[in-house]
Amino acid sequence: MMSKVEMTEAIVLAKYEKSIGWGEIAKAAGLGEVYVTSACLGMNHLDPEPAAKVTELLGLGTEVTEALKAFPTKKWDQVIPTDPLIYRLYEIVGVYGPTMKEVINEKFGDGIMSAIDFSMDIDKEENPAGDRVVVTMNGKFLAYKSW
Amino acid sequence: MMSKVEMTEAIVLAKYEKSIGWGEIAKAAGLGEVYVTSACLGMNHLDPEPAAKVTELLGLGTEVTEALKAFPTKKWDQVIPTDPLIYRLYEIVGVYGPTMKEVINEKFGDGIMSAIDFSMDIDKEENPAGDRVVVTMNGKFLAYKSW
Amino acid sequence: MMSKVEMTEAIVLAKYEKSIGWGEIAKAAGLGEVYVTSACLGMNHLDPEPAAKVTELLGLGTEVTEALKAFPTKKWDQVIPTDPLIYRLYEIVGVYGPTMKEVINEKFGDGIMSAIDFSMDIDKEENPAGDRVVVTMNGKFLAYKSW
Amino acid sequence: MMSKVEMTEAIVLAKYEKSIGWGEIAKAAGLGEVYVTSACLGMNHLDPEPAAKVTELLGLGTEVTEALKAFPTKKWDQVIPTDPLIYRLYEIVGVYGPTMKEVINEKFGDGIMSAIDFSMDIDKEENPAGDRVVVTMNGKFLAYKSW
Amino acid sequence: MMSKVEMTEAIVLAKYEKSIGWGEIAKAAGLGEVYVTSACLGMNHLDPEPAAKVTELLGLGTEVTEALKAFPTKKWDQVIPTDPLIYRLYEIVGVYGPTMKEVINEKFGDGIMSAIDFSMDIDKEENPAGDRVVVTMNGKFLAYKSW
Amino acid sequence: MMSKVEMTEAIVLAKYEKSIGWGEIAKAAGLGEVYVTSACLGMNHLDPEPAAKVTELLGLGTEVTEALKAFPTKKWDQVIPTDPLIYRLYEIVGVYGPTMKEVINEKFGDGIMSAIDFSMDIDKEENPAGDRVVVTMNGKFLAYKSW
Amino acid sequence: MMSKVEMTEAIVLAKYEKSIGWGEIAKAAGLGEVYVTSACLGMNHLDPEPAAKVTELLGLGTEVTEALKAFPTKKWDQVIPTDPLIYRLYEIVGVYGPTMKEVINEKFGDGIMSAIDFSMDIDKEENPAGDRVVVTMNGKFLAYKSW
Amino acid sequence: MMSKVEMTEAIVLAKYEKSIGWGEIAKAAGLGEVYVTSACLGMNHLDPEPAAKVTELLGLGTEVTEALKAFPTKKWDQVIPTDPLIYRLYEIVGVYGPTMKEVINEKFGDGIMSAIDFSMDIDKEENPAGDRVVVTMNGKFLAYKSW
Amino acid sequence: MMSKVEMTEAIVLAKYEKSIGWGEIAKAAGLGEVYVTSACLGMNHLDPEPAAKVTELLGLGTEVTEALKAFPTKKWDQVIPTDPLIYRLYEIVGVYGPTMKEVINEKFGDGIMSAIDFSMDIDKEENPAGDRVVVTMNGKFLAYKSW
Amino acid sequence: MMSKVEMTEAIVLAKYEKSIGWGEIAKAAGLGEVYVTSACLGMNHLDPEPAAKVTELLGLGTEVTEALKAFPTKKWDQVIPTDPLIYRLYEIVGVYGPTMKEVINEKFGDGIMSAIDFSMDIDKEENPAGDRVVVTMNGKFLAYKSW
Repeated sequence: MMSKVEMTEAIVLAKYEKSIGWGEIAKAAGLGEVYVTSACLGMNHLDPEPAAKVTELLGLGTEVTEALKAFPTKKWDQVIPTDPLIYRLYEIVGVYGPTMKEVINEKFGDGIMSAIDFSMDIDKEENPAGDRVVVTMNGKFLAYKSW
Repeated sequence: MMSKVEMTEAIVLAKYEKSIGWGEIAKAAGLGEVYVTSACLGMNHLDPEPAAKVTELLGLGTEVTEALKAFPTKKWDQVIPTDPLIYRLYEIVGVYGPTMKEVINEKFGDGIMSAIDFSMDIDKEENPAGDRVVVTMNGKFLAYKSW
Repeated sequence: MMSKVEMTEAIVLAKYEKSIGWGEIAKAAGLGEVYVTSACLGMNHLDPEPAAKVTELLGLGTEVTEALKAFPTKKWDQVIPTDPLIYRLYEIVGVYGPTMKEVINEKFGDGIMSAIDFSMDIDKEENPAGDRVVVTMNGKFLAYKSW
Repeated sequence: MMSKVEMTEAIVLAKYEKSIGWGEIAKAAGLGEVYVTSACLGMNHLDPEPAAKVTELLGLGTEVTEALKAFPTKKWDQVIPTDPLIYRLYEIVGVYGPTMKEVINEKFGDGIMSAIDFSMDIDKEENPAGDRVVVTMNGKFLAYKSW
Repeated sequence: MMSKVEMTEAIVLAKYEKSIGWGEIAKAAGLGEVYVTSACLGMNHLDPEPAAKVTELLGLGTEVTEALKAFPTKKWDQVIPTDPLIYRLYEIVGVYGPTMKEVINEKFGDGIMSAIDFSMDIDKEENPAGDRVVVTMNGKFLAYKSW
Repeated sequence: MMSKVEMTEAIVLAKYEKSIGWGEIAKAAGLGEVYVTSACLGMNHLDPEPAAKVTELLGLGTEVTEALKAFPTKKWDQVIPTDPLIYRLYEIVGVYGPTMKEVINEKFGDGIMSAIDFSMDIDKEENPAGDRVVVTMNGKFLAYKSW
Repeated sequence: MMSKVEMTEAIVLAKYEKSIGWGEIAKAAGLGEVYVTSACLGMNHLDPEPAAKVTELLGLGTEVTEALKAFPTKKWDQVIPTDPLIYRLYEIVGVYGPTMKEVINEKFGDGIMSAIDFSMDIDKEENPAGDRVVVTMNGKFLAYKSW
Repeated sequence: MMSKVEMTEAIVLAKYEKSIGWGEIAKAAGLGEVYVTSACLGMNHLDPEPAAKVTELLGLGTEVTEALKAFPTKKWDQVIPTDPLIYRLYEIVGVYGPTMKEVINEKFGDGIMSAIDFSMDIDKEENPAGDRVVVTMNGKFLAYKSW
Repeated sequence: MMSKVEMTEAIVLAKYEKSIGWGEIAKAAGLGEVYVTSACLGMNHLDPEPAAKVTELLGLGTEVTEALKAFPTKKWDQVIPTDPLIYRLYEIVGVYGPTMKEVINEKFGDGIMSAIDFSMDIDKEENPAGDRVVVTMNGKFLAYKSW
Repeated sequence: MMSKVEMTEAIVLAKYEKSIGWGEIAKAAGLGEVYVTSACLGMNHLDPEPAAKVTELLGLGTEVTEALKAFPTKKWDQVIPTDPLIYRLYEIVGVYGPTMKEVINEKFGDGIMSAIDFSMDIDKEENPAGDRVVVTMNGKFLAYKSW
């Protein structure tokens, strides 16, 4: 069986050689760009049909399809990420985490935003003072239940 | 000088006794709910006018206004947050951080989303299958420059 | 406002002085023993009615009722717990965590067991070779969704 | 000697190629699904007979039988697990650990639930509002003895 | 309720003022010196009779007796102890831990030495080349069971 | 030069193939079982004669003898061991470390038990209620000297 | 695709064999010495033209050019660096960090010095009492904005 | 003796009440702004004369002068700083540390930049595209000597 | 009983008010300067006579004498020290530790330098190019013994 | 280019096969034993002449000479060393670090002992009660300068 790491290497190489963007791959899969990218990086699985479509577009073999279909074990090594782009996200959680808890609890009650029943989009907002990254997260509210 | 911790305690107590929500406080300040909440929790400062408006609405003294105006040192103790609501955000950074880097770099070039020239909104999306939390982050793209 | 820590101290003292067990407190609240104990230790909230019942049974004041109703921030200090009873649970997660992932994924698909839509019971199984602790966890399966 | 890691790779590959589930492997071994899965993942040993049965079912060689019989050194790398399914279990220990100690100590006296003289079952509870995972742990109570 | 920390301070002070040794306190309790010392340091509980005897010998009040009877939460702050006497014990676990596992597994089978059903003695062995500390640990062997 | 890791692998394999126990190897070396096992696991060295005897018994080459004679650098990776057998020893240091310091200091004065001028034995005590592991540590008392 | 690590090895080897200094490489690239060095060590990317110039000067192939153009993931392993030269920089951040925050906030308002829109120069100041290293950092001030 | 922490609190309060800037305090001391600020924050000492001048300007008592003169123990709690302004400096060390080592070693030989025989200035560079922070560090080069 | 921390505060204050140096205190005690300083900082104990002499010289009460005589628990909080003077010592252990092991093992055999049967002196070596600190450590060689 | 790790392996092997001691190698280099050993272990560089002498004595090739001349990046993995010989040195820093700071500051003023302009010797002091290791460190005093 091809590992998720080997799968990602194969996909990234094919994508580079064919000059295909993540958006185009997502379109082939019929799914969102963020989700499909995360699956190609090994952090989510794809169902058989989109897995086959992605593999086909990139001209890769069925072992890549199989690897895309496998349920991943999600693993990261850096408790605090060092890459500046990813660190800024960590910093946002540190600075705004308690604020988000206050606001969500006041609007919804005691509970959390699911990270499983969840989606995310990343868009570009053009702006003469410098373009802006717009990240939209959408997660189901899960209430703590007493029993 | 009143410390930020004492300021937050005073605000949270007054808010509780007067049954005022974060949204109402934000309206008084003429700013967004997330930003004002973060300032009241000590993670941002308010300019003199909104600081005075917030203090007035809550019926608190000028030492709270002064504390709201002070520039904070942003500090958090838990490298990995334990509260489930905040942990889920940390998990999203772990699971989707590399994906976000891929997508942002492809759309914008080599650089990051600023966490300083940045805003965030939290909305409630009603849904018969369970309401959903919608978090929108909007940060300026900053390109790495060579020199 | 009484803090959760002060609330727990007040409850534990009253419980000790009146010789009341957690089971009896849970019965007064009309809820399960594990849930009510966790609320009294500050890790969950109680709705107004059970909060009032618990306070009344223990002969405590309304500031305890208010503290029981507050939504808690869940916090623990020891990344690896040292108390042997709690460490054994941590060890079970270390030894059996990947096994549980394998079995749950095979039975349910790609997803997790919720720790929010979740309940737990602890029972005593009498056994001549030594009584046994029976812990039953019941959590909703949440499937990862693609988008 | 085949290492436990190589053994697990061999078993997982054979299982995948033959489309055999953990339940079927457990039945061949005459033992519970959780225990057999943990042994196949290298966290427990099997006695000679079930080890031979598992190997036979999967069509593997005697070096796998030998590896299944070896006493493992239990080792995990992530002090805090990152995979969401396993993290939720860690979170349950953090949130409910002190509660479990309170309840067990009250029901049994000063002591712990053994993680050695211990068994676990994982079942699926069908539910129209979403199926539920039921985890049952059963461990001998061990009393602290004075001497 | 007196906390375990206050209890230890009271005991150590009384012991110092009355010049009583741990051995004498243990004799009053009718238990071993190591166990009684650990209970006085807050890491084990005493049953009502020995708790009363210790309190009486030291001329302390009943709140100490009650504190000695309480079931402790075992907690230590230093993951790696710094005091040289205690560090040497940690070092022994690091250097000889895998050896002890090898020898115990060979003599007893797959399992562990219990730290709960366990006792320890510390003796002085006189020796002209320098006296020696003799530590004897005695723990029940617990076999891993399959299920 | 053969590394200590390769040496251990060679010894464990030969021991397994010849079905020789650690006790037998120790007898060949004319030394204690714990010490010889620790040397074979790479945590101590053997003098030329016992090194040759062990190599001969196992039918191994002189590179193993040389590796057994080399002075080891003692290294362990897990600050807190995860294997339950070894963790229990770590737990004993956490729970009883301060007690051992109290008792040793009272019996011997200010100083430590050496982990260098040190020996250890592991014995099996048969017991109808379950066999027991008896660990005896014997270390020279080293007094802190003023200068 | 050549990895950044392989690229750095190739560059360092060619640089050593041709006895070319970083300043000369920077001159070929038409950029600053610090920036170009950081790109050659894999912590920044080069645009196509300077990438080609560097490769040409060093007599390396186009796979090095491609690797220099790739956007890097910035990663470092040592949370606290051990090399004395780099540790001294870490120490300066520890000792002078809060001072720098005080002075920058007073001169510029609430905000930060960008590490992205940023440049650095390293010069040698000759001095009879010992030459001195002069490091000049120049980063855009980014003000926190309210919203 | 007044502690450094109490000294800093007294200085910051007096500075705030008298609306005096760090630059003005430095001028009174006849020293640089960064150095004097660091001394007032407790990370360096002042010689008697500048210590007296700073105390006088702020209208504080001699216990502050004494505290300013005391040699500090430099201590920081956050191995990785969380405040964004200070984190960016840490990030610069992570990203550019190995580059700085390369460049300094090539220009000066094997050695380090001293953090003791060291000075730092922070200036504001006005810029229509956004003002810039200019940090200049100047440290003696110390060569490793063989012996 | 006076704690070691209170004892150190009392000694440092008296020493400051009477302008007495560590060397003078050591002379009164009839012991070395490093040892006596370490005892006054709470990291070693003094025997009754030197303890009384130190207390007398400083004009302090008998509770200080008692505290000096108590056997300390040696504790430090910073796994890696931040103060530059102490960090440099830590750095020396990191850079030269393996070298010291090589040289000591070659000169003495397999064993260690004791940190218990140990003394240290710190001297000033005048030098026109800058005075030098001379630290001399003298520890008994302890050989690993087989058994 | 030969890495420092490969260089050390080559040197240690040649030294073992030719039965040459570190003292003899140092004599060939015309430098101190500790310095030369540290260079051979990869923690310092040698100038061309001593590098050539060491290589010649050991009968090794010029790639070893080149590797000895390279400026090393000093790196260690274990924040707290586990080998008992090296740990004892770490312990000495923990126990005596604050004492050394007190004594050095009193004798020299505010500053540090350099670890760069630094030398060390290790000698054997014969003693009928057991030989002693004598470590002499000699580092330039560097005063903190104000600016």
